[in-house]
This record gives sequence, structure tokens and C-alpha cells, in this order.
Amino acid sequence: MSDGGATTGRPGELQGEARRARFGPREAPTTALLTDQYELTMLRSALQAGTAERHSVFELFGRRLPDGRRYGVVAGVGRALRALRSFRFDEESLTFLTEGGVVDGRTAAWLADFRFRGQVWGYPEGEVYFPGSPLMVVEGSFAECCVLETLLLSIYNHDSAIASAASRMTLAADGRPCVEMGSRRTHELSAVAAARAAYVAGFDATSNLEAGRRYGVPTTGTAAHSFTLLHADEREAFTAQLAALGEGTTLLVDTYDVEPAVRLGVELTQGRLGAVRLDSGDLSALAVRVRALLDSLGATSTRIVVTSDLDEHAIASLSGAPVDSYGVGTALVTGSGHPTSGFVYKLVARAASDAADAPLVPVAKKSQDKVSVGGRKYALRRIDARGVAEAEEIGIGTAPEDDGNDRPLLVPLVRDGEIVGEEPLEAARERHRAARAELPLEARKLSKGEPVIPTRFVGAAAPTANPYATAGGPR
Amino acid sequence: MSDGGATTGRPGELQGEARRARFGPREAPTTALLTDQYELTMLRSALQAGTAERHSVFELFGRRLPDGRRYGVVAGVGRALRALRSFRFDEESLTFLTEGGVVDGRTAAWLADFRFRGQVWGYPEGEVYFPGSPLMVVEGSFAECCVLETLLLSIYNHDSAIASAASRMTLAADGRPCVEMGSRRTHELSAVAAARAAYVAGFDATSNLEAGRRYGVPTTGTAAHSFTLLHADEREAFTAQLAALGEGTTLLVDTYDVEPAVRLGVELTQGRLGAVRLDSGDLSALAVRVRALLDSLGATSTRIVVTSDLDEHAIASLSGAPVDSYGVGTALVTGSGHPTSGFVYKLVARAASDAADAPLVPVAKKSQDKVSVGGRKYALRRIDARGVAEAEEIGIGTAPEDDGNDRPLLVPLVRDGEIVGEEPLEAARERHRAARAELPLEARKLSKGEPVIPTRFVGAAAPTANPYATAGGPR
Repeated sequence: MSDGGATTGRPGELQGEARRARFGPREAPTTALLTDQYELTMLRSALQAGTAERHSVFELFGRRLPDGRRYGVVAGVGRALRALRSFRFDEESLTFLTEGGVVDGRTAAWLADFRFRGQVWGYPEGEVYFPGSPLMVVEGSFAECCVLETLLLSIYNHDSAIASAASRMTLAADGRPCVEMGSRRTHELSAVAAARAAYVAGFDATSNLEAGRRYGVPTTGTAAHSFTLLHADEREAFTAQLAALGEGTTLLVDTYDVEPAVRLGVELTQGRLGAVRLDSGDLSALAVRVRALLDSLGATSTRIVVTSDLDEHAIASLSGAPVDSYGVGTALVTGSGHPTSGFVYKLVARAASDAADAPLVPVAKKSQDKVSVGGRKYALRRIDARGVAEAEEIGIGTAPEDDGNDRPLLVPLVRDGEIVGEEPLEAARERHRAARAELPLEARKLSKGEPVIPTRFVGAAAPTANPYATAGGPR
Repeated sequence: MSDGGATTGRPGELQGEARRARFGPREAPTTALLTDQYELTMLRSALQAGTAERHSVFELFGRRLPDGRRYGVVAGVGRALRALRSFRFDEESLTFLTEGGVVDGRTAAWLADFRFRGQVWGYPEGEVYFPGSPLMVVEGSFAECCVLETLLLSIYNHDSAIASAASRMTLAADGRPCVEMGSRRTHELSAVAAARAAYVAGFDATSNLEAGRRYGVPTTGTAAHSFTLLHADEREAFTAQLAALGEGTTLLVDTYDVEPAVRLGVELTQGRLGAVRLDSGDLSALAVRVRALLDSLGATSTRIVVTSDLDEHAIASLSGAPVDSYGVGTALVTGSGHPTSGFVYKLVARAASDAADAPLVPVAKKSQDKVSVGGRKYALRRIDARGVAEAEEIGIGTAPEDDGNDRPLLVPLVRDGEIVGEEPLEAARERHRAARAELPLEARKLSKGEPVIPTRFVGAAAPTANPYATAGGPR
């Protein structure tokens, strides 16, 4: 967190990319069993039927945004690419699958040799998305694309839900730093991914140490109420904290009475206290009182950090209060009411036959309440003359010549099995900042509404009725 | 899944505990950085102040149930004990913490030697809980208890949220098997824990293969729409699946038109088809039509599996329909509206001084909206003469003599640092079944309401106003 805020970490020599390269990431030895059984039983059936190698195109997309949201944020791309790299069936996995009768010997042999050799295009991390945006297009044999379904969806559904909520929070904070501190309210490893996704969407730091080690997200944190309660009184506790962490630290001042605690913090630091943290009560009124008190005591540069069940609405309601930074927990890690993105992964095209040069034909299931559009897509963001996004344009096949008013949204992520889309996390964070700034001003509204730009299906393959035009349709 | 349902796994020789012992669990090498930074900065301050070794008692509890829920389910106990075992600061972690300035040399040295040597009592896994139930009591030095906060909360908050939702679903299903298939809608490792928690709460199987490998949860799965779309028509697809997986398999019949698909499945198996799966449309009406069709074709033992955004309410509404089992995804892994349990971990007592024989004194923060009750607790479930639970009784200190009408709820989990509370997952599943059956009948209501039994604080240490008596108080 660049302004210091509640951060106690004193940066050592290793920072940013160098630190990332040194310490992380360290993933599970294999991700191959983070998979739904039906992918392997489909593989088994297709191998036996001789259809497993049919050339196929799968698409990962959301039929709609979470109810009332104006835009979504793509996150998890980097994690998905890393997970793809370790998607190998090791001997233990194969023994488990074979002994349990999930796969037969032929399927096990295929899995033992498995390495994804296909193509993946996708929206780059941090980009915004809309209903129907083809967030990831996976092309290869049916077999190799089919087995990635659950892993890719898990990562995208989780990380994008967190980033989408986080982006609303950083918008509401309007430049004031936001710190992610929700680890305790979600699965211990979701917490690490959530800290990463929040950082992509503009959060400045996290309380989660593993997110610091694994992804280089700045970490922060000072003390809880238990530290004060451990000691005879606040004087003993604050003195101990200041001695260890220095005057720039953040003191938690609401264990007993806020006013005497603030006075004590100022007294013990001769007015040089870094920050105070308020974690209960009417934060808006309290911040006004505490700011006035700090100023009256000469502690004009002591900052005020607020925490306590904040979400984007609470942050917005504090915009007029003298608050310097926000710590956000539960609402962030649970996607602020939308803990999953609802993305699906569908076969959209396949070879017409098993001939080597067979053309791709679009496919789609028929059920009325779960539409999808067949065919391999391109996607563009149409930008108007003022540089403002005006539509998400999706078509089948190759994108038209650029007329200077659109931005192609799909970039290569994997080429012939080789991962080519990895990038520093800072690049995703910067991309998000730019993509969000390009949206119409209505994107800043926290109230429920329609997607801030429409999704347009163009060209011959457009469905007669645009299935994604209406948000909040049938589930 | 004992009745076969949509299960294709053909059990090999290794089952249940033997399989668990053979294949899992395999955790990350260390869980020590799944921690909020403030725990280590508090440790650093306390070490410097000489207060780190003060004898302390922390308690993990929830101030209330999720809004409107009648009871909660404790899950994650076994995972927490395993995570505790691998909570060690390895060299890489220490280098990360030291170079980043999070800890100083003295703190790093303490962490390098760290091993939890204290005591832990807790509600055993699968037990039900109520507002204020002391789900876990951790006793030891301040330092060793303090550093476990985030890891324990993450595991309990996630797993109990899933189990609490799952229990309502299995109640609503009223004996019909439920299959967990939500992996794709949550973080890839939350998915594994969710499958485990759902199993504790009565689910019969999961789609998640890693949950099978790691925890021995039965796995199941057959085919998605993509498998049908890969082939020229349903005849080619179904023929392929039946050839590989046998007539006992489950055919997905709603890719095109349900009726011809059902007829085809029956035809291809001469009426011996295991099951059909319906994944869209009006499931209740559709199940009635499909049952009639199956019966008219002589396929009277072909089962009907339904999936498609089910939650406990949808399951209950299908109770009159001829459905044989339920597949539940999104609603399960997101806790059906309550993705976290809201548990906190608070210092409730500490030594009055640093003297070796100093008595414990209760401590509690003062803020009005986040009450806690100081002191080390006992907890009993009061059972009436008919064997029905009537109250959650919580007191400070040692439980009174058993008068034959109560069940002690806290069991030893860790004794002098040694983990003593591990048990087979089946034991937790059986415990949940029994504990839920003991609750008053109102526990079966899915509508919003008060906790089904009251929480009573007893004895001298009872607060003048019971802080947990009212559900849905201030957040």
C-alpha cells in the first residue's frame, strides 16, 4: 500500500516481480483431479467410440451478469494458465481412477500421456466483460478440451466474482486505498485467490501473507482486540505495539472507549501516530469525531482506517466522512452478494466428420432456459469518438478489419499447447484501471441496472433473437 | 452412492477408510502463511513486551446463525486438525517474512521453532450448533493461540456454511439421495472441501474427483451436453456412452427433445437403462411426464435424476414429483445465500499476571455491536424426557454433574499439542444424522425463523442480558 496506511511491512530489497519470481507460485503437484468425474467418463466413452479426437471448440462465457450489475471483471486468467501447466495425471491419480472404476485401462493410458496441445484465446485479465462475452475459447481435440472444464470454470467463476465486487468497492472508494482482509471468512485457499483478484481490481493491499508470498500482493496488518485484552490496559498494549512496530503503526482504538484511546495514542507518539483503526459503531459519525479530536491534539497527519462489515454501499456512504482508507472483509471474499459468476463452458463447434480437413460446424443445445450460441467467436469492444465504450460486439469467425473504433478482446493465451499469455499481475491491474475508465459514467452506479453497454451479435451467424440482450432473464 | 443413482464408479477393492489411508490426504507443505499479517505483528509486539507467553484462552464461535436459519452444522474439524499439523514456518516462509519486514529476527526465531503445544476442545464434526456455541476453545500461550486465528476461522467459516446449507437440502430431500456437483461454481480447492462438508451433512456422493481421492467421498458422473453435441445425433452419442459405461449409466436427455431421447435410451437398453437426467425446464412437470413415459415403455426401474440450479426450496417443491435423486451445484457451494458462517475467534480469558500460578481472568471488548462473553466455557445440549433437544446450555468453567439429561458438547481435539480428535469422516456423518434427528420438529422448516432451541447462559458468569438470545440483531 503505497501511502503506508495500516501497512507495517517494511519493504526489503526484493519487491514486485523480483519477489514474485523468488517466492512463488507454488501450486499443488497436480491439478488434474480438480475435475468432475463426468469429464473422464465422457472421455472414456469417446475413446471407445472413436470420437475423442474430433476437432472441437469450447467457449467459457456467462449468459448474464449477476442481477443488477453494470459490468463484470475478468480475473483468474494467470491462475488458470498456471493450473493448466500442472494439469497432469500422475501415477497416484491414475491408480485412484483405475481402482475406483472411473476409467478403464485405455483411458488411463491416454491420461498418463495427457498434455494439452491445443489453442486458447481469452479476454486478458483485468478486462471488463458483459453478457455473452466469449471469455475463453479453447480449441483442440474433444478429449483435451473436455477434461479442462471444471478446473477452468472453478478458477474463472471464483476469481471473477471477487474482482467484480472489488471493482465496485474501489470505484466507491474513489481513490482512497482499500485493503482486503477477508481471509478468515472464506476457504483458506480461496482467500489467497481472493486477495489476488481484489488487487487486480484496484485494492492496494491484503492481510493475507500467502498472497504476498505467492503473488507479490502488498501485505498489511498490525493488531486485533485480543492484543489489547492481553495486556493490563491500553497503555501497556499500545506501548508494546509502538515499541515493536514504530510510531507509523495503526492502533486499534475501539476495544474500550474510543476517545481516551485516541488521546493515549497521540500522547505516546507526541502526535506522530501513523493511524487509528475504527472497527465498530457508527463509522461515519465516529470518524468525524475522531478526526476533530486528532486535529485538536495536533495529530493532523494521523490517518483514520475504518473496518467492520464494509461493502461498496457502506464505502460510498462514508465518502463524506474523514476516512483515509477502508478495510474490507466478508463482502469482498463473498462477492458482495454474488459469490460466483455463473460462467459455463460449452461445446460451440466441432468437426463435421472425422476427416482431417472436415469443416467446423456450430453446435448448441436446444433447451429454452439455457441458451448458447454455436460457432467460434470473435469479440470487439466498440469505442466511440470520445473514447467511450459503446458496445460489446460478438461475431462468428474472423473479426472484420479494424476501422479504428474497436479493440479486439481475445488474445492468445496458449498456442499449440505452449502457454503464451502469462504476464505480471501489475499488467492486469493496470488493464483493469484503463478498461473501467473507458466505460460510460453509468458504470459507476452502485444501484441495480442493466449492463452499461449492450452486447451485439453481428454477422450471418447472429441468432434471430439476441439471447443475451436482456439481463436477469430465466435462470 | 449406494443406490447406484448416476454413479458410474465401479468400486474396486479399496473402499472407505482403507482407500482414504492409501490415497490421502495430501496437503500443501505448510499452511503457516494462510494467516493474516496482524497475527505475526501482534506476536512480534508481544515478544518484545514480554507478554507473548501469557496463558490465554481463545474461543471460536458465532454470535448468531445466518438470518432465519434454525440451526447450524459444525464442519471442518478434521481439516482444521490436519492443517494444524502442517502449520510450521519453513525456511522459505521465514525468508519471505523477514525480507518483507513483517517480522524481526527474534520473531522469526520463535516461528522457526513453533509447534502448537496447547489444548484444544471443540464441538465434534457433524454436531449442530446455535448462537454462542463455543465451537472451539484453544488454550495455551497467547503467542501460540494467536497465530492460529485466520487458519481456523477460514476452515470453520467455509466448511460449516456449506454443511449448514447441505443439511437443509438433505432434510428437504427426505431420504432421496443428493449428489454434490458444484465444483465448477467455486474456487477449485473450496470445491474439494465443499464436497467433504456436504457428505458430512448427508449428501451421498460428489462429482469432485479430488474429494474422492483425498477424503474417500463416493464420486459420480456420466456425461454433459457436450458429449451429445460431439456426435451426429443422440443415437450415436447414447450408443457410445452405453458401450463404455454400461446400461446402468445415466443418460442426459434434454439436449434436444426429451421425449424422443427417453424413448431412444429405453430402446437401446431394452428397458434396462439405469437413469435419465433432466437438466432444464419445469422439472416437476417434466419428471411426471418422463416417469409416465418410462413406465409405459416398461422401463419401470429406470430412475430420474434432476439437476439445474436446485436449492433446498426447489428440492422441497419437487417432493411430490417422481424424482429419484437430486444433483445440487451452485446453491450448495455458495451456502445457499450464506457463503460464510460469520464465526469469530476471540480472546476470552488470560492469566492475571505473568506469575506461573496466576489465575485466569475473563476478558471481553466493550463495543456494543460486537459482544462476546469472557471466560472459558463449557457447553451442554439439554435433552428432554422424550429425547428431544430443548436448550444449548453454556456456562463458565467446569460443567455441572450430569443429571442424565444433557450431552457435553466439547470434546478434546488437541492435548498438549498432540492431535487426539481425528476420526473417520463416516463418524461425523453419522453424528450429524443423530444430532439433527434429536432436534425439535421445527428444525425441518425451511422458512425463516428463530433458532430451534434457545441458548442459555448459566451460572455466576452469565451476562445480565443474554447477548445471543436474539437472532438477527445488529451486524
